[in-house]
Amino acid sequence: MRIAMVAPSCPVSEAVVARVHERAALAGAELMVHPQVHACEGHFAGSDAVRLAALKEVLADESVDWVWCARGGYGSNRIAAALVRELPARALGKRVMGYSDAGFLLSALHKAGLEVAHGPMPADVTREGGEAAIDRALAWMVRGDEAALEPELSPDRPSLAFNLEVLVSMLGTPLMPDLEGAELLIEEVAEYQYASDRALFALTNQAVRPASLRMGRFSAVPDNDRPFGEEAEAMVRRWCDAAGIAWRGRADIGHDAQNRVVPFGAINH
Amino acid sequence: MRIAMVAPSCPVSEAVVARVHERAALAGAELMVHPQVHACEGHFAGSDAVRLAALKEVLADESVDWVWCARGGYGSNRIAAALVRELPARALGKRVMGYSDAGFLLSALHKAGLEVAHGPMPADVTREGGEAAIDRALAWMVRGDEAALEPELSPDRPSLAFNLEVLVSMLGTPLMPDLEGAELLIEEVAEYQYASDRALFALTNQAVRPASLRMGRFSAVPDNDRPFGEEAEAMVRRWCDAAGIAWRGRADIGHDAQNRVVPFGAINH
Repeated sequence: MRIAMVAPSCPVSEAVVARVHERAALAGAELMVHPQVHACEGHFAGSDAVRLAALKEVLADESVDWVWCARGGYGSNRIAAALVRELPARALGKRVMGYSDAGFLLSALHKAGLEVAHGPMPADVTREGGEAAIDRALAWMVRGDEAALEPELSPDRPSLAFNLEVLVSMLGTPLMPDLEGAELLIEEVAEYQYASDRALFALTNQAVRPASLRMGRFSAVPDNDRPFGEEAEAMVRRWCDAAGIAWRGRADIGHDAQNRVVPFGAINH
Repeated sequence: MRIAMVAPSCPVSEAVVARVHERAALAGAELMVHPQVHACEGHFAGSDAVRLAALKEVLADESVDWVWCARGGYGSNRIAAALVRELPARALGKRVMGYSDAGFLLSALHKAGLEVAHGPMPADVTREGGEAAIDRALAWMVRGDEAALEPELSPDRPSLAFNLEVLVSMLGTPLMPDLEGAELLIEEVAEYQYASDRALFALTNQAVRPASLRMGRFSAVPDNDRPFGEEAEAMVRRWCDAAGIAWRGRADIGHDAQNRVVPFGAINH
């Protein structure tokens, strides 16, 4: 099982790579770290061209089974459409894991026919208890261990999972995932509650909507100058009700070490 | 000239109302302040029902010429579609002014056939030099004074102006303005530059795009943990170039006392 680490958004440190190498060795995986993960150009792990080239390189490499996004941040939307246009033929047998900003890539590559999974990334190793997140991602990639999966995934309901702001940034663009009939899992971090309310307005007022929705963790919500006056779950349920989207409860995903794996599409246990 | 003040988003103080009353009297306007501008329910100037009712009331009042949104904040998106569905017949002769979160209403009401203008709001009186913003809005509403207008508006190019995050929150929803063939003016405040880059990605990757774009002020940009590495104007020009949207330079709008008035549609001087 060969896993290639690239950074479609922001770079990671040598320390992150060293710790993830250790976990990968323990899990019996061969981890190939593309040097682009340490590139730096302004906000990004190298220019758009550099990040796109690294992604194409690992997706064209016949020895690679999984492509693992090193971290989020921001920037994969700037190269996702070009990647799909120039997708190497060998990409189609590979699988891709990431979350947060990597959601742009997950959506684009899932629509292009790749298997993708919303799940922990190498940079999560720096979180408190972060090795458990890394081990969970590896358990799914290396052994297909179902204990790594979000526990309520169902073969009857094809699932998609996204960071809410990332998903809303795809609405109406060519990267937009096909939500029709899907169960959508959302999570959010470090956004004001009014901004999440606004994002839920946008999501639930599209012509095409998910059939059902589950809510992961909305963490590190900043205090606003005025309290929002509604619990986050009540907010999500209200938008679901107004749009006729079935509320299916909570989901075990989020920007934290507990973040479970959500392969896109129907899961056949 | 009778101007009705309502608060479709967040409330304003008695002090704001007192100062704006003074400016309105000097400008020769009769200012009618709906008591709803002081209502408070969580984040909002009263519940959705209360804010919607106040808007409908002033739009149904035959003595009212202009409806003036008291301030932004967040929340007018939650009532804009219902307002259009239940629009009083007398609304069609009236005009509406606001900006920031009020952009949701401007878009919805402009599509419904009302004349609307992106311009200063009563709460701007608390800014440094804010009375000039109030006087500018009043000069346009009371006298149609063209000195109040953004100086580069052209009869050849119908204009629309929005806060960037507010505009992006309307993409794909029924509130979405018709940007086809329009000159779009955008401004932003207190957003990370990466978030504005992401918003510009979303805006410029829609099937329907503006013909041209001008950039107002992007102010109070927070420092990120890593510098973005590109000037804000270069960022906007790059997205315009990639999408085939004509770049028309800067615009004199923003979250500040200098904010000029932009009536939606073609201006006939």
